[in-house]
Amino acid sequence: MPLVVTMGDPAGIGPELLLAAWRNRAEFGLPPFYVLADPDVMRTRARDLAIHVGVATCTPEEVEQCFASALPVVTLENRADTRSGADAPASPDAVVEAIATAVAHVKAGLATGMVTSPITKKSLYAAGFKYPGHTEYLGALAATHWPDEPAAPVMMLAGPDLRTVPITVHIPIHAIPQAWLKERIIEVARITARDLETRFGIATPRLVLAGLNPHAGEGGTIGHEDETVSRPAVEQLRAEGIDIAGPLPADTLFHARARKGYDAALCAYHDQALIPVKTLAFDETVNVTLGLPFVRTSPDHGTAFDIAGKGIARPDSLVAAIRLADQLSRDHTR
Amino acid sequence: MPLVVTMGDPAGIGPELLLAAWRNRAEFGLPPFYVLADPDVMRTRARDLAIHVGVATCTPEEVEQCFASALPVVTLENRADTRSGADAPASPDAVVEAIATAVAHVKAGLATGMVTSPITKKSLYAAGFKYPGHTEYLGALAATHWPDEPAAPVMMLAGPDLRTVPITVHIPIHAIPQAWLKERIIEVARITARDLETRFGIATPRLVLAGLNPHAGEGGTIGHEDETVSRPAVEQLRAEGIDIAGPLPADTLFHARARKGYDAALCAYHDQALIPVKTLAFDETVNVTLGLPFVRTSPDHGTAFDIAGKGIARPDSLVAAIRLADQLSRDHTR
Repeated sequence: MPLVVTMGDPAGIGPELLLAAWRNRAEFGLPPFYVLADPDVMRTRARDLAIHVGVATCTPEEVEQCFASALPVVTLENRADTRSGADAPASPDAVVEAIATAVAHVKAGLATGMVTSPITKKSLYAAGFKYPGHTEYLGALAATHWPDEPAAPVMMLAGPDLRTVPITVHIPIHAIPQAWLKERIIEVARITARDLETRFGIATPRLVLAGLNPHAGEGGTIGHEDETVSRPAVEQLRAEGIDIAGPLPADTLFHARARKGYDAALCAYHDQALIPVKTLAFDETVNVTLGLPFVRTSPDHGTAFDIAGKGIARPDSLVAAIRLADQLSRDHTR
Repeated sequence: MPLVVTMGDPAGIGPELLLAAWRNRAEFGLPPFYVLADPDVMRTRARDLAIHVGVATCTPEEVEQCFASALPVVTLENRADTRSGADAPASPDAVVEAIATAVAHVKAGLATGMVTSPITKKSLYAAGFKYPGHTEYLGALAATHWPDEPAAPVMMLAGPDLRTVPITVHIPIHAIPQAWLKERIIEVARITARDLETRFGIATPRLVLAGLNPHAGEGGTIGHEDETVSRPAVEQLRAEGIDIAGPLPADTLFHARARKGYDAALCAYHDQALIPVKTLAFDETVNVTLGLPFVRTSPDHGTAFDIAGKGIARPDSLVAAIRLADQLSRDHTR
């Protein structure tokens, strides 16, 4: 069964990366996948960039047969503008349809898992999109299609040698301390431990929790939260049988020897989690959404309007996202 | 002229690292240096660990002659306890004397620069030490010996491929926003630019400023400080002729291609600055104090009482600190 990949914002780098990934499918060892897109977008981008890739419209069932000779595209009902760059007209209906359809395809057993290409929230908001972002929309779609399974999306960043999970994400520094709650740490740790086992196939996942404050608070002398919040959370998780250490000083947690000690590091906030992964493997970092009843990965970059349509964007992260989605789907379905 | 190295806490790993560094001086390409210490500490540690290194007491003037055949030690007036580990009695008088004497030796032209071994503040506090830490004490000593030169110590972390400067350091996350001041950013940037030129020999230093908030605040949607504080600080610095970019998202600032764009990254807080340097080069990261009228480096680790006296601590960071102090002294004096 193939993977499904959304087109993303047609004005961004998504379409050209998909063309580049398919063209080098053998080199990258990619499994069969299809794109939910307006085929005109894909064909126009291929022509404009002189990427000699055939685009074949087909049904999900025909993908395995078609994949060897052309990039399989399953056509959306909504059309999209074929132009690229920040000034191109937005195509919010097609963008949202691709995401919703991908989830429906996974639910219907037409695809093993989904990879999403980058979107811009701004153009979606203007068209009435009501979710804070991609991930929250997927959570809502999950609740619709799998009403009996809890959907609590948790972002993981996965590089070749390091996985991190930010416990707070897109909030300002000043809002972090009040969001640093024992219950939230416990919820994220449980989801991470479960998904490492069921999706990543790690029998006994080992977690670490990075301290909120420098030196993990140094015994309470640099902020109290690591004593009053982080430590009790770790203690409760250990009592539940989850293998988790911490809170540990974040600055000494991510070098090569330290990384051998755990399967995923739970971090207090965005930069604490994203800096080490992207410093080590900027091009290959993949965004994985844990806590969903289906597999979803995405490249860890945005629409990059400034270089869209120029053929210079690197497909490494998309390729890594497709490969990881394939791996997670296999572990999950065995 | 040699470098001077302080003994640090004699109960920690400092003495054994100094013995290891001297023993491998040829391999590591180390310049002549001497240790300000109680020679009994050095001899006892060498004997206990069966490190076959001769310890020669001498004056600073005799170091260059002595260095080839033995580790030169200039004796302190205060004696120190020779035992190692957390339970060993503290030797605060000797520890403080070594630091003060090192500065006096640099001032007197006996040493080109100083390297400090790790200390623990706790035992110094108990003996009446009045400074928040090592660096603040060095600032006070600088003001005494160089009354006409401003001393404003600024911490830099230097690895083989990355230099970062935390603008706020050992404060809790909740205290960062009120410490994120335009004046402080400007002061740190000026000192960094000046020392990169005068100490590191970089003719036109290029700086970047990491954003305080995730995505550098994303245009004000994730916290206002990068618009109201960071950006005006960068604008003023650029108006002064300092080459500085930012505020830039911290998570995309430290991978290999990004690092080519600057000579030092100014960071908003401790973990933002220390995570990337230590993730890339944990063993070789050096702490450099900018803003002083003399050269000071130190290994970027603590006393490590738990492994002190066991001969398993790695001298890499001390070695890198000695080499960098030598480099900075040369650039400075040319």
